Amino acid sequence: MPLEETTTALDLTLDAATLTARLVDIESVSRDEEAIADAVEAALRGCPHLVVSRLGHSVVARTELGRPERIVIAGHLDTVPVNDNLPCRWEETPDGVVLHGLGTCDMKGGDAIILRLAATLPEPARDVTYVLYEGEEIDSEFNGLRLLAESHPELLEADFAILMEPSNAVVEAGCQGTLRVDVRTTGERAHSARSWRGVNAIHRAGDILDRLKAYEGRRPVIDGLEYREGLNAVFIRGGVAGNVVPDECVVEVNFRFAPDRSEEEAADFVREFFEGYDVTVTDSAPGALPGLGLPAAKAFIEAVGGEVGPKFGWTDVARFTALGIPAVNFGPGDPMFAHKQDEHVPVAQIERCEQELRRWLESQ
Amino acid sequence: MPLEETTTALDLTLDAATLTARLVDIESVSRDEEAIADAVEAALRGCPHLVVSRLGHSVVARTELGRPERIVIAGHLDTVPVNDNLPCRWEETPDGVVLHGLGTCDMKGGDAIILRLAATLPEPARDVTYVLYEGEEIDSEFNGLRLLAESHPELLEADFAILMEPSNAVVEAGCQGTLRVDVRTTGERAHSARSWRGVNAIHRAGDILDRLKAYEGRRPVIDGLEYREGLNAVFIRGGVAGNVVPDECVVEVNFRFAPDRSEEEAADFVREFFEGYDVTVTDSAPGALPGLGLPAAKAFIEAVGGEVGPKFGWTDVARFTALGIPAVNFGPGDPMFAHKQDEHVPVAQIERCEQELRRWLESQ
Repeated sequence: MPLEETTTALDLTLDAATLTARLVDIESVSRDEEAIADAVEAALRGCPHLVVSRLGHSVVARTELGRPERIVIAGHLDTVPVNDNLPCRWEETPDGVVLHGLGTCDMKGGDAIILRLAATLPEPARDVTYVLYEGEEIDSEFNGLRLLAESHPELLEADFAILMEPSNAVVEAGCQGTLRVDVRTTGERAHSARSWRGVNAIHRAGDILDRLKAYEGRRPVIDGLEYREGLNAVFIRGGVAGNVVPDECVVEVNFRFAPDRSEEEAADFVREFFEGYDVTVTDSAPGALPGLGLPAAKAFIEAVGGEVGPKFGWTDVARFTALGIPAVNFGPGDPMFAHKQDEHVPVAQIERCEQELRRWLESQ
Repeated sequence: MPLEETTTALDLTLDAATLTARLVDIESVSRDEEAIADAVEAALRGCPHLVVSRLGHSVVARTELGRPERIVIAGHLDTVPVNDNLPCRWEETPDGVVLHGLGTCDMKGGDAIILRLAATLPEPARDVTYVLYEGEEIDSEFNGLRLLAESHPELLEADFAILMEPSNAVVEAGCQGTLRVDVRTTGERAHSARSWRGVNAIHRAGDILDRLKAYEGRRPVIDGLEYREGLNAVFIRGGVAGNVVPDECVVEVNFRFAPDRSEEEAADFVREFFEGYDVTVTDSAPGALPGLGLPAAKAFIEAVGGEVGPKFGWTDVARFTALGIPAVNFGPGDPMFAHKQDEHVPVAQIERCEQELRRWLESQ
């Protein structure tokens, strides 16, 4: 009688699209990545040309060929919660075959490419550090890349990093920062039948909303890429009871800022924008400059066709940048479908990303 | 061995302030009025000159002397929830003795006066219908006065009504109406990192709040009394997630309107005020005209000293008005302390109200 397998075995000789489907069907919502990390670790340990490490449910596999240049290729293994979109399913469309399901786009298509390259490129022209990590979709305290950088920074040392976040299979450089603030008005409570005895804090918030409505986002061009800032109320709350003039109103504002501003500069801008109001910063993450002038980035972009756009959303590219490693986003899938119930990835994009990365890693 | 008493006996020979304290210590939060109604009913049935009826936990006691005029004197028996303010306690202040506790002000001081008058005036110059009712502090479906008016309208027939709601022991005439509406803006969701693809519904609400801030309430003079309207946002809500441009914002507005407008006219005013926005009426109660030109009202006000003010808050006076019975508020206690933890009533106000009502009911 054969031994029972305790993990789902991943066959890295499968094509990347089929491998994507296998990864998608290993449910791996954040904080529940053990099964997928076990499967990934076991498969990579089967490749004799790789040195494999594991920290928590993050796996690092490195070639050790003594090349003059080292590249990180990274993807997270976790997904947002299941939303009646597992297991995955194939669909034939006029534009080609599409794989539907949780994580197809964000970002197991990219993970499958990482695994394929790791398994099938024993002697790349550049040394490669493949990173498959946990906890990206939730609070940064759980972020596997952050934990790796803190406990084993030597494992992440590199000249350039490619994060396989969905970017429609074209390079997206840098990323915008994000800042959250509470903008607060105060007043004085009174019974609404004698409202002139109070001061309505909700009425006072009208000016805050008017400023937001009139806001026009900066569109700075950095390394030839046009970023676009945005300043939005994402929540508003106020009120005590149906017959009480309220004494507080809070507008929660999200500022997405271009990577030519630091977090401090972004916070200063928002404070000045809401001058006269009580502003409290509740959350902040820096952006990342595209760094397209750096030789490693330049060479990569040329190798994959020269097309490059700005990344508006925040990704772990900013984390690499903070570590001093130039980084870009380059992965299959349309980021507009990330976190959506109808998340999907076109097979052609998986194939194109894999081919282009493979060609670049093999080229001198 | 004496029979065990199943209800707290009320001694109607006590002075009204002491009787107030006894009533306060019979806890009677809305929907829990059985004990107090039992006590009130038993005490009134002990008066041979009264015809007593009971419906649910409301009690009606009538003189049947064949007088040409009949007066209703009414008070509710229920209170808002206990807030660490029972049992009651006395306090000596430089301005006289004050009784503290739940219901002292709203409105067991008034109830005690009703019971004292009922018990001690066997032959008033006007026939009197004393009404002590349940369920005033909660949804109108439980309102004892409404239930009585629907099932036994003949019991409430009268030429004039006095509601003993707290009014600082001076007559407050009429009452303002109240209307609640939801004013809604809509937009289009988008990821906040690409906010220009969406339309922010919260930003659109700025104009609604600006209109409210600029609002100046009408102050119509009716029967010589100046009313004062008020239009206030009492709640605001909007938001989907911290990274999403929201597609809906709702401002909940409370309109307190003078009694020269009907509910329909009040709703029309609010719809016009918020022209261009989706307005939904969620709740509405009519006001009541002061009716000070009516002979019964005129005579009463003269009898109690001639001082009269407008009532801003909504009371069951509006219910009497709707039944075609002119009505005023006249009771001990400052309405500003109703529903507050430190609710209280000055003994001097209880005494003054009782004396003035007694004199009027005895006079030809």
